[in-house]
Amino acid sequence: MGALHDGHMSLIRQAAQENTDVVVSIYVNPTQFGVNEDLDSYPRTWNEDLEKIQALNTEFESKSSTGSGRVTAIFAPTTKVVYPTLPPTSELNGNGSFVTITPLATKLEGASRPVFFRGVATVCTKLFNMVTPDRVYFGQKDVQQSIIIKRMVQDFHIDTEVRVGPTSREPDGLAMSSRNAYLGARRRNVGLVLSRALRAAESVYLTGKKSRKEILGAANSLAQSTLAEQELLPAYKRARFEVDYISLADPESLEELDHVDESKGAVLSGAVKMFPLEEPQEGEDCGLGGGKVPVRLIDNIVLQPLS
Amino acid sequence: MGALHDGHMSLIRQAAQENTDVVVSIYVNPTQFGVNEDLDSYPRTWNEDLEKIQALNTEFESKSSTGSGRVTAIFAPTTKVVYPTLPPTSELNGNGSFVTITPLATKLEGASRPVFFRGVATVCTKLFNMVTPDRVYFGQKDVQQSIIIKRMVQDFHIDTEVRVGPTSREPDGLAMSSRNAYLGARRRNVGLVLSRALRAAESVYLTGKKSRKEILGAANSLAQSTLAEQELLPAYKRARFEVDYISLADPESLEELDHVDESKGAVLSGAVKMFPLEEPQEGEDCGLGGGKVPVRLIDNIVLQPLS
Repeated sequence: MGALHDGHMSLIRQAAQENTDVVVSIYVNPTQFGVNEDLDSYPRTWNEDLEKIQALNTEFESKSSTGSGRVTAIFAPTTKVVYPTLPPTSELNGNGSFVTITPLATKLEGASRPVFFRGVATVCTKLFNMVTPDRVYFGQKDVQQSIIIKRMVQDFHIDTEVRVGPTSREPDGLAMSSRNAYLGARRRNVGLVLSRALRAAESVYLTGKKSRKEILGAANSLAQSTLAEQELLPAYKRARFEVDYISLADPESLEELDHVDESKGAVLSGAVKMFPLEEPQEGEDCGLGGGKVPVRLIDNIVLQPLS
Repeated sequence: MGALHDGHMSLIRQAAQENTDVVVSIYVNPTQFGVNEDLDSYPRTWNEDLEKIQALNTEFESKSSTGSGRVTAIFAPTTKVVYPTLPPTSELNGNGSFVTITPLATKLEGASRPVFFRGVATVCTKLFNMVTPDRVYFGQKDVQQSIIIKRMVQDFHIDTEVRVGPTSREPDGLAMSSRNAYLGARRRNVGLVLSRALRAAESVYLTGKKSRKEILGAANSLAQSTLAEQELLPAYKRARFEVDYISLADPESLEELDHVDESKGAVLSGAVKMFPLEEPQEGEDCGLGGGKVPVRLIDNIVLQPLS
């Protein structure tokens, strides 16, 4: 969807290492935004995106290493091309031609965003049919998306290979996201709660504990204590948030787990909604939108099989 | 779905004239049958199907005409191949990976059969992805199906061309259908009401009338008088039926029309449900299933643009 950050760049690098020709699609897909979501405010940075891709190509050309491909096309279709008949709808009961992948699409992110994965699966089907890529690249950060796209490719016998690149993170651990531009310094700092909570839960798993209670307990107590700290601060200093979910789920079905099967591992994931700043301060770095745009952060860690 | 009749043969001939290699798919797709529909009793005639295709190939080979292709493959996948993850569901709210095309899929046949076109669009997407045909062939008899497949190909940018072959009919006008095998002589004869009603309506259109009232009036009065005749007969002689719908609709949107736009034409279509025979007679030709299987007949006529 554009607004390219280092996570996207990392995926393009991976694609260029594994292919001769890389097509970068840049399209803000309306059908994956719910009616009350941030389609209008979603960051669009077309000129910067082009410059970043051009710089990457220059870097590829300067490398003498073999096997490095190039970005040979940017695919930025109009909505009339992507949705040629009926206008795209964000209504759950709206009309159109859609791909649905249930029950996967109803879990985790789908519980909060009921049209999201219908929009993602639909637009990916269209993009795959238009571009016919040998391989498609998705980021691990959107773990449910990558699981759904893999399922879709399998169920519909789509002739492509789904590759998932690791989540790119800021030095302090915040998962990179185009939406981070809206955070500003204060919310960005508090928003670290999500990656820290997941990391805490992962540590418990790595010490050999397998129960949901122990693993998620670590994440939930970190989130709760962070929330309590913020609530005690005065409005001009704090950044309030709400935990949408913290989940421990099967890596294929995304069913919630009571115990992790060591031979399968699990997906530890969560979403946190950062509320608008209550009292932005004069001269404060409030991010795009002046701290008024609520920001939903997601993150995940795959608990690898141990046996 | 197999149970090949002359309508299928006509499509295969057309495909062989226009292509070098023809793949015939034979697969009774469970997801297009509703929970109370005839999946179990749907005719399956595998050996006869193979013989018919073999005979057709022999005929193609004996022809010295240029441009005639061959049936080079019969594609008859198992359900585990077509639905590799979750078992196929016939429940409207069942889980799975589906393609939906609304509002087209909710009209006409879809009003009576709510999962039907979801199943058709889904299985066709899978078959198209597995076979990657340059052209796909559908029969005009299933007019709504062909309109939905065309829309699906357009909306999802599927790289194939949809060709629609004319409805094959018995000498008395009955549209060929695999389900006709269940009719038997008595119901087959009364079942002609549908094609006759549509033909009557077409005649009105061809005399220059454009209103729904006049065009459908002719079809409805023919259907009603036929029904009245049957009701007066004793149970051992009659074949009762119910008109599901008789429709005059826009050829692209399938919206019902009050007046036909001469520049666009219209689709005249209908469905009739033949009830089981009340009193089958000794020695009577009752068709497959002994006259006990209800049979839903569909038919249509495209009213061509006149200007």
